[in-house]
Amino acid sequence: MDFADKLDRAWSVSAGMLCVGLDPVIERMPADCARDPRPVLAFNRMIIDAVGDLVCAFKPQFAHHAAVGAEADLAESIAYARAKAPHAVIILDAKRGDIGTTAQMYAREAFERYDADAVTVNPYMGDDTVYPFLTRPDRGALILCRTSNPDARRVQGIEVDGEPLFVAIARRAETVWNAKRNCMLVVGATDMTDLSRVRAAAPNLALLNPGVGAQGGSAVDARTHGARADGRGLVVSASRSVIEAGGPDQIREAARQLREELRLGAPVARAPA
Amino acid sequence: MDFADKLDRAWSVSAGMLCVGLDPVIERMPADCARDPRPVLAFNRMIIDAVGDLVCAFKPQFAHHAAVGAEADLAESIAYARAKAPHAVIILDAKRGDIGTTAQMYAREAFERYDADAVTVNPYMGDDTVYPFLTRPDRGALILCRTSNPDARRVQGIEVDGEPLFVAIARRAETVWNAKRNCMLVVGATDMTDLSRVRAAAPNLALLNPGVGAQGGSAVDARTHGARADGRGLVVSASRSVIEAGGPDQIREAARQLREELRLGAPVARAPA
Repeated sequence: MDFADKLDRAWSVSAGMLCVGLDPVIERMPADCARDPRPVLAFNRMIIDAVGDLVCAFKPQFAHHAAVGAEADLAESIAYARAKAPHAVIILDAKRGDIGTTAQMYAREAFERYDADAVTVNPYMGDDTVYPFLTRPDRGALILCRTSNPDARRVQGIEVDGEPLFVAIARRAETVWNAKRNCMLVVGATDMTDLSRVRAAAPNLALLNPGVGAQGGSAVDARTHGARADGRGLVVSASRSVIEAGGPDQIREAARQLREELRLGAPVARAPA
Repeated sequence: MDFADKLDRAWSVSAGMLCVGLDPVIERMPADCARDPRPVLAFNRMIIDAVGDLVCAFKPQFAHHAAVGAEADLAESIAYARAKAPHAVIILDAKRGDIGTTAQMYAREAFERYDADAVTVNPYMGDDTVYPFLTRPDRGALILCRTSNPDARRVQGIEVDGEPLFVAIARRAETVWNAKRNCMLVVGATDMTDLSRVRAAAPNLALLNPGVGAQGGSAVDARTHGARADGRGLVVSASRSVIEAGGPDQIREAARQLREELRLGAPVARAPA
């Protein structure tokens, strides 16, 4: 199935646009997971069981697995999510950025070794770093555009021909990189003016919006300023505010509330672009 | 030992400024390595044995290990290089770029799990993505500045206040990020005009120069246009042109020739900045 169709199905089946991050931190997970012989896998499985039907996507964070040598746990967590929530899109958040053979190796890692549907990619090296991740219509790339961190605008906000770099990136993704309908953009849910500018420059693309919860972003605001004209088009990602909410019941309740805010068909007060 | 002192010792002991990449590709390695039960480790050990005394640094490429699940081979290769060439600086080429806890996880992976001396870092997300890799004086970060690929200038060459972004990045590294003397820049050996501009903006920083050999760059040119006033300041990196030169004898000869071109104390015809 093409990536664009997988994503559309994921929105429909979950009835919403919520993504939950898998960012396991052994020091901060519930005691029964932390005591497990494989704590990272136990934690990820607990999250997947708790929220699988509520999310359109899971976003495993590569660093949280790599720092503790948990590559096998990462692979098994993705396989577990596929079995328990077969509609959910799997986004490997690894922020790859390289060229030539090396970029091909990263694509092989994401799409074959880990069987992710998509991977986040950093565009600082130009088109050479983007295309190796966009060759397969059934797998996608999420290009960093306007990230959620405080100093994001130092580079991303540089003016190019009268507009910020992140708007130029968004337009290039919409008009060039998305030929196979498998290119998304990463746009933080932390600045609604900038989110609106990206949506205006890329009316058809799906956007991943990190920054909801711990970083201060609001799912309702993201939806108001970022949704496509058809009411879809967002993958709004929460991590710590959901996965560190407590035990399975609290985690599910935190996700349920966010999913309600991101439910398909709910009325959207469209903001001016 | 502080990173800056390690690097200075590496130049002195190797009497040159050559770095060799560890980019194992099973399909392209000598048959006796490819047949080994651990081909990636066998290949890396063969390279380290062949050129350890000739190089100031080894640059293992993360993707070539991650794509084939060879994390253990990567860790053991680095430990082997430490034993066989204790003067050599180990640069993990992983092009990390993330923020907050995630960036801290990547620093932990590079400096603790793999025991690398330094890691390559992508600055697209701004200062937030750079600082987590610069907290330890004994470990360094190499910030992508002006990379060696054909489309590098699409983003890196954008004009900011009358100069290209990569020059602004170089100046910020020289004046702000290098407070602990552990910040380097990645500048391709493929464009001598741009290399000269980086050196003018960052007269004191050490530069990693990929692109020699397979990508068309020349070690002599890189030295002429990139060396510091004291004749040091470069880590000129060759990968395929050395590691795919044949068996150990051919590999050593390819490295020896490059090291001669990059020998400390050899006369440099200084180009105008």
